[in-house]
Amino acid sequence: MNHLTDWTDLPDAVWEACLDRARWHRAHPAWTRAAAGRALGLLFFNPSLRTRTSMDVAAAALGAHAVTLSPGQGVWGLEWRDDARMDGEAAEHVREAVGVLSRYVAALGVRTFATLADREADHADAAFRAVVAASSVPVVNLESARWHPCQALADAAAVCDTLGDPRGQKFVLSWAPHPKALPRAVPNSAVVMAARLGMEVVVARPPGFELDGDVLDFARQAAARSGGSVTESEDQHAALSGARVVYAKAWSGGAVYDDPGAEAARRAGHADWRITEAALGRTAGAAFMHCLPVRRGVVVDGDVLDGPNAVHLLQAEYRLWAQKAVLEWIWEVRGSGFGVGEVQGSGAPSVRA
Amino acid sequence: MNHLTDWTDLPDAVWEACLDRARWHRAHPAWTRAAAGRALGLLFFNPSLRTRTSMDVAAAALGAHAVTLSPGQGVWGLEWRDDARMDGEAAEHVREAVGVLSRYVAALGVRTFATLADREADHADAAFRAVVAASSVPVVNLESARWHPCQALADAAAVCDTLGDPRGQKFVLSWAPHPKALPRAVPNSAVVMAARLGMEVVVARPPGFELDGDVLDFARQAAARSGGSVTESEDQHAALSGARVVYAKAWSGGAVYDDPGAEAARRAGHADWRITEAALGRTAGAAFMHCLPVRRGVVVDGDVLDGPNAVHLLQAEYRLWAQKAVLEWIWEVRGSGFGVGEVQGSGAPSVRA
Amino acid sequence: MNHLTDWTDLPDAVWEACLDRARWHRAHPAWTRAAAGRALGLLFFNPSLRTRTSMDVAAAALGAHAVTLSPGQGVWGLEWRDDARMDGEAAEHVREAVGVLSRYVAALGVRTFATLADREADHADAAFRAVVAASSVPVVNLESARWHPCQALADAAAVCDTLGDPRGQKFVLSWAPHPKALPRAVPNSAVVMAARLGMEVVVARPPGFELDGDVLDFARQAAARSGGSVTESEDQHAALSGARVVYAKAWSGGAVYDDPGAEAARRAGHADWRITEAALGRTAGAAFMHCLPVRRGVVVDGDVLDGPNAVHLLQAEYRLWAQKAVLEWIWEVRGSGFGVGEVQGSGAPSVRA
Repeated sequence: MNHLTDWTDLPDAVWEACLDRARWHRAHPAWTRAAAGRALGLLFFNPSLRTRTSMDVAAAALGAHAVTLSPGQGVWGLEWRDDARMDGEAAEHVREAVGVLSRYVAALGVRTFATLADREADHADAAFRAVVAASSVPVVNLESARWHPCQALADAAAVCDTLGDPRGQKFVLSWAPHPKALPRAVPNSAVVMAARLGMEVVVARPPGFELDGDVLDFARQAAARSGGSVTESEDQHAALSGARVVYAKAWSGGAVYDDPGAEAARRAGHADWRITEAALGRTAGAAFMHCLPVRRGVVVDGDVLDGPNAVHLLQAEYRLWAQKAVLEWIWEVRGSGFGVGEVQGSGAPSVRA
Repeated sequence: MNHLTDWTDLPDAVWEACLDRARWHRAHPAWTRAAAGRALGLLFFNPSLRTRTSMDVAAAALGAHAVTLSPGQGVWGLEWRDDARMDGEAAEHVREAVGVLSRYVAALGVRTFATLADREADHADAAFRAVVAASSVPVVNLESARWHPCQALADAAAVCDTLGDPRGQKFVLSWAPHPKALPRAVPNSAVVMAARLGMEVVVARPPGFELDGDVLDFARQAAARSGGSVTESEDQHAALSGARVVYAKAWSGGAVYDDPGAEAARRAGHADWRITEAALGRTAGAAFMHCLPVRRGVVVDGDVLDGPNAVHLLQAEYRLWAQKAVLEWIWEVRGSGFGVGEVQGSGAPSVRA
Repeated sequence: MNHLTDWTDLPDAVWEACLDRARWHRAHPAWTRAAAGRALGLLFFNPSLRTRTSMDVAAAALGAHAVTLSPGQGVWGLEWRDDARMDGEAAEHVREAVGVLSRYVAALGVRTFATLADREADHADAAFRAVVAASSVPVVNLESARWHPCQALADAAAVCDTLGDPRGQKFVLSWAPHPKALPRAVPNSAVVMAARLGMEVVVARPPGFELDGDVLDFARQAAARSGGSVTESEDQHAALSGARVVYAKAWSGGAVYDDPGAEAARRAGHADWRITEAALGRTAGAAFMHCLPVRRGVVVDGDVLDGPNAVHLLQAEYRLWAQKAVLEWIWEVRGSGFGVGEVQGSGAPSVRA
């Protein structure tokens, strides 16, 4: 069964085939009936605009039928902890809810943000893993505590469209200010994604906002295979020099688990990490990327978003094409030109070569 | 016009044809276009996970199109009382809302839980009946104050799959503890369902948690036709002896209308009615049933839910197949093998014989 | 690109073709695949029952696929002001949200009620215009601060069905009492609609509840072309005399922006503007119209709504047929009998003649 938990679990060949297929879909947007007769359950424990719309449309464009569920909004709140005695608010456990849903649908897409309160659960992607464990059908990660693989695939396609050959080019993941503590699924995914593309990746962030060591290890392993590199910097100005991509993203420091007040104060102290036209001027004509939603004037200036170098709408558009590719892969439905079927299991030849 | 208000309104032959058809659908899950060109409105006055998903997928699997509406969540709050002067929160009356919706759709599914505050309205199923009265298209009851007919049909199919021939076998509906006062639509429906199947039905519950006399009367009438029986017991241990099915369900005592505090205290005093492995050990290898959602460690132990005798996921799965059968019946669309058309009106021959 | 912002922007010939087509659809309700392969995004900043259901079904009935989004309910809250520094509740700007959505879908339907707090923004339809500006696909107004063009089209069809030839007949738009301050999109649209039909339009309302002068100007220009007229009256009794249509609607007085308390007090002082059987008795057997939702016993008596002259359900039903016509027009999909394609651009011949 083909789950999409995160790309670190899967052979590079699957990633590359899906990436190719996402770009193929953009060039061939016509709707098909490749996945007719299949339902897709979309389970959102957190809000969504892009993801629920692009998944719903991706399903429809393949002839499948999506049903969107938001626990707590017209749907029962769900418990996912194994040992919970359920005498509180949650009326149902993920074991039952997902056990049932996976008898109604042919795949599930699930969003479970980081708690930012339970370090161990977040690090283990425990809520998302509980859904996968309870499901009898393929599960697609629509952003878990640690990973956002559909975003990564869409981002990679946007980078390839923008730069042509991304290998050896400088990709700066730049920490950004934000009024709220945010999870790290997107920065984790972005750094691994750019490393996979063979880019010279720099994670620029203030002290106290380090990404997890195991994530950087994953990224470095990917870079070792692709000919890229991954380094860190606390100097945004220096990092931006020579950059071909600036990917801005707010994320919380590790202190959020132990001392949220201190983390917030530290975050507020770095408002000058906001991406401005001046900052972009220090790069080598870098494309500006962001996963959205983005706060104008806080994370990045409106001028940058409205300027010619911004590709955030292309990234977001690619969510649709990437998720069509992912649905084809998990369901093993093969439209014309889709080589994943052959690649999987054989393990070796890159369909991008 | 074929409303599904509750099975007590309908000839046994319709029930039996839908039951057969539900089991046929499980064996023949392919999607069809039998109900193409029809919209189904799903109006949820209360939360839902299984019901809204299974109805939506059931509609899609017949080629129809479901629209889900949750009054109060992006939809106007609705008034259903006839004499209301509408100067409060509700912006619209069911007469208008349902009058309009039934011009957009070919059938309505409606959920209206018991108020547990207005005894008379609950007993008369007044909110649900107001919807039926205002509708110009067939209405399917997706749980009203008194009945949950789709659940009953799914449960019956699960019983038949599990036991083979259920006639003469012992079915225990066992009251269960719960932190909240809950409606009785499910226990009412379950006792009538098991009686219809010709089972030896025992309603086990503490004093003060009697089901309504007219519900037991319906059940006894059904038992008289099917060769079953319906009795009550205040001794859970004795009731479980020899049981082939244990159907656990929390429901509120009648005092909930007059003295909710006393009812809650009484409920809390019977925490030991929770179904455990030990309790199940007293039965004749009984299947464990529950309509879901269920609170682990409160209503039933996780061991039981995760054990080999639990059929709650099968029950829930059958919601999908049962509702496909119901939609075919209300719309009078007849796929291969569906005998309801012939049975209705003739009144007599059981298609299950 | 065919936006439906409001009918004041569009040639009369488009209005007339859509009106004819709406009536044609009612007579030819069969579903088609005319718009297959197209997604429709429905973005509701405010609650909806009729609109979201009728748009969803209209899309399905043309073979298209609708996705409904409610910012703030499982979707990010959205900012639309150009100069906002986004450090508050809204996590995303309309520029990004709509920019993205319009890459997923082939058209957007958008609801943005009046703020009733920012006079200038409401008068400029600023929130709705921000959506249109950010969209790369056609946008359909599903009620903005100033206009409700789909309602107007449906209302016109209901008037034509009810009266036959409406020209020269008396149409009274009668202000109605309501516990809340309400926007004016519907009364604005109704007065222009009836003027377009060549009716003798009277806007009856208490002092302090005048419609905007530019709206009355639009209506008078339409009346000049159609042979109708538009006048105002503060005497409901006199206005009703000879009426063939009474269109009741609550709306707020202009004081709502400056002194909401005074506005509420003034509103409460005119409870006797409620439409009763006695009031209807003063007309020439007038049809009773209301856009819904309506508060029984406050805006109008239940007797009137349940009586033979009420056509509010027909109006609401026509939302479905009108929106099918609108979707065909914006997408330029031409089923049999649809003359808009030819009319547009040529500018001249009325397809209703």
